[in-house]
Amino acid sequence: MLVPVKGEAFKELKKVMPMIPKTAVILAAGLGTRLGGKPKGLLRVAGREILYRTIVLLKRKGVEEFVIVTNGRYAPLYREFLEKHGFEAELIINPEPEKGNGHSLHLAGDKVSGRFVLVMSDHVYSETFVERAVKGRGLIADRRPEWADAGEATKVRVKGGRVVSIGKNLGEWDAVDTGFFVLDSGIFSVTSALEEERDGDYALSEVIGRAGLEVTFVDGLPWTDVDTPEDVRRARKMLVKTAVKGAGDGFVSRHLNRKISTEISTLLVERTSPNAMTAVTFILGLLSAILSLANLPLAGILYQVSSILDGVDGEIARAQMRASKLGGYVDSLLDRYVDGSFLAFLAYSTLREPLWYAVALLALLGSVMVSYSTERFKGAFCRDAYSEIPALRKLPGKRDERVFITMLFLLYPVQTSVKALFLLLALITNLRVAITAYFISKKVSQSKTI
Amino acid sequence: MLVPVKGEAFKELKKVMPMIPKTAVILAAGLGTRLGGKPKGLLRVAGREILYRTIVLLKRKGVEEFVIVTNGRYAPLYREFLEKHGFEAELIINPEPEKGNGHSLHLAGDKVSGRFVLVMSDHVYSETFVERAVKGRGLIADRRPEWADAGEATKVRVKGGRVVSIGKNLGEWDAVDTGFFVLDSGIFSVTSALEEERDGDYALSEVIGRAGLEVTFVDGLPWTDVDTPEDVRRARKMLVKTAVKGAGDGFVSRHLNRKISTEISTLLVERTSPNAMTAVTFILGLLSAILSLANLPLAGILYQVSSILDGVDGEIARAQMRASKLGGYVDSLLDRYVDGSFLAFLAYSTLREPLWYAVALLALLGSVMVSYSTERFKGAFCRDAYSEIPALRKLPGKRDERVFITMLFLLYPVQTSVKALFLLLALITNLRVAITAYFISKKVSQSKTI
Repeated sequence: MLVPVKGEAFKELKKVMPMIPKTAVILAAGLGTRLGGKPKGLLRVAGREILYRTIVLLKRKGVEEFVIVTNGRYAPLYREFLEKHGFEAELIINPEPEKGNGHSLHLAGDKVSGRFVLVMSDHVYSETFVERAVKGRGLIADRRPEWADAGEATKVRVKGGRVVSIGKNLGEWDAVDTGFFVLDSGIFSVTSALEEERDGDYALSEVIGRAGLEVTFVDGLPWTDVDTPEDVRRARKMLVKTAVKGAGDGFVSRHLNRKISTEISTLLVERTSPNAMTAVTFILGLLSAILSLANLPLAGILYQVSSILDGVDGEIARAQMRASKLGGYVDSLLDRYVDGSFLAFLAYSTLREPLWYAVALLALLGSVMVSYSTERFKGAFCRDAYSEIPALRKLPGKRDERVFITMLFLLYPVQTSVKALFLLLALITNLRVAITAYFISKKVSQSKTI
Repeated sequence: MLVPVKGEAFKELKKVMPMIPKTAVILAAGLGTRLGGKPKGLLRVAGREILYRTIVLLKRKGVEEFVIVTNGRYAPLYREFLEKHGFEAELIINPEPEKGNGHSLHLAGDKVSGRFVLVMSDHVYSETFVERAVKGRGLIADRRPEWADAGEATKVRVKGGRVVSIGKNLGEWDAVDTGFFVLDSGIFSVTSALEEERDGDYALSEVIGRAGLEVTFVDGLPWTDVDTPEDVRRARKMLVKTAVKGAGDGFVSRHLNRKISTEISTLLVERTSPNAMTAVTFILGLLSAILSLANLPLAGILYQVSSILDGVDGEIARAQMRASKLGGYVDSLLDRYVDGSFLAFLAYSTLREPLWYAVALLALLGSVMVSYSTERFKGAFCRDAYSEIPALRKLPGKRDERVFITMLFLLYPVQTSVKALFLLLALITNLRVAITAYFISKKVSQSKTI
């Protein structure tokens, strides 16, 4: 059925429709050398094969068909990989993989028409990179590579928006080749010519140089290629660092917790599941609460440790491409219970007067309400409070800050410092809730789009 | 731009697109008699003019153009009404309103083409009624009118899906005329014939009878016509009763609180705003918390009174068509604070041992977490937990039940009963949260559509 699409719907369609190529060709025929005999596309980085990442990210952006060019030795491994994940892809075998990779591209010529993505099987890309890159044209190049090793990379010289020279050892260069291209099938007239001239032995860079491809700059977004064990470590670190969500991060999280938690995540991301980390963090949090019966400074420190670890499950989940809304949901309930238990045990072990218990009850109420006030907004409006009202990010009273303050007050605990802590928490949290409600009311009243 | 629409989007479109007429004709020329000199369409029922309700409900369902046929005396009043609300509508003046209302329909003939809605200005319809009615054909009739006075109503006899006779005093009849029609412009050939035969003096029912209109049955959905002060009271009650949302209502709410709150809402809906009621309910709730310092049975009763009143703001808001997500948001934060304060004050005034304070802290934590666990789900998945998981509705521990139990335990308060109350609340609420999380995990894991 054909339906006229107007207004907002049209804008939405225009944003996604005309630009994204439907097919991707993946070059995976190269014989891995420095990383053992395994095909590099099947190398696991942060718990996922490189090719799994590339295929899933491209699918998310709208690519539907995949053509993988590999060699006879790797083909069964790639077939097994595709089956395991339920991916549909066409496998083309390059019988002469020792020759230049230009020939591999040429072999895919029959399978594509119109615009298509060409991508290397040994490059690891972040979602933000792929999102920008699929909308580009020609060679996707990076003038400020942040994660890739520029020394080892293929460089390009660009003039008038096109490649004028390309190679690993260019004296003067403008940008680095990211291994990601958006081409159209015209490129195969270039490969056909090179097939004849070179008897099928020529590199992709020669194709690019001769075609004088357009260049799209995608600067500073996370991507890297993987050639050595050192590269694998760097790629892992990149995936963990870019997995920090951070929308609800407070001051302590940004300046302390995340720095530590991403190091821990990098260490654990190849061997732990996010759910296991959620469980460990929860148990440590409960232990810190119970410890407050015996030793307040240690309890406070353990509480802060569990708060640092609280970032790890989410980081690992996103780096492993295993993030789920359910995981976030359960994690968020458990955080509330750890906080509630900590305050309950702390009050039980330190307070004696009813008045101070009342303060503790209000501190506990406020500490849950800080989350409640933003989550209830999200439930009602299906929008993220922190994105809609950026001022909320600067407002003190988030969990990371509360836990850190709690630890500080418990380092040299006396009756007065514990009471001051409860009073401070009760004030900060409930004030924060009131201000949140005020900002939200103002925002909703002003905006007709919410 | 023409775009192919497939799959779910197509089904969505098919649901709403071909069926809803674009124009509505509203007959408002009749001279009100039993309700003072005011035009009946401008009569306020539950804080809104009848015509405001009809126009807004039709707009929500997709009707875009409005034609109002009125008389010379009422025209300025209707013009003022349209301007006040920013409605666009065409006013047609019937210079002979004392003649039958068939002529009023005839006068609208030039303004409509194709299918259109015809509706009476003195009928009050609920949203569910309009939703069904606009998708019908011909005369929309009700075989089991629940709110309208069947004695006074126009009846129809139906055979083979068409009107065979119509009138107020039919001996045998099948259904009642709801004053709502979905016609097409062919009807004007009937009015034209009657214009000549009767010199312009004929009732709408004669047009319907002669046309042998198709009949669509919409049985038992809320609608009523307004002719006497008694009718106004009935319409008001209907609007309040159908304004009960009830998705999160527990046992006590369904069997006690709602019965009382809808009576109160019916009393107040003409003179109070939802926001004023939210404020009153909040203040009463806080007062009940403070009262627990002095008199526990009275505090419990006042707490229960505030819980009953807690339904009123929502009922009034929906009956007045003033419901807003922001209103629901603020109301929900305030409920949590009333509950938290009540437990904090109650604990302060009754408990002495640290262990019982710890129990009170867990009861407070659980009482907020009951809401948090469903709202956090809604925030993550943009779906209502109670609709997705109906079992949650039967699970005890909702606010109305907690408040009622609290009141019962405080009627003859002794140390033991207050402790038992805190223990019971801590158990019920936290158990409910655990079961909610379990149900949600199961649902999400099973369902691929969430």
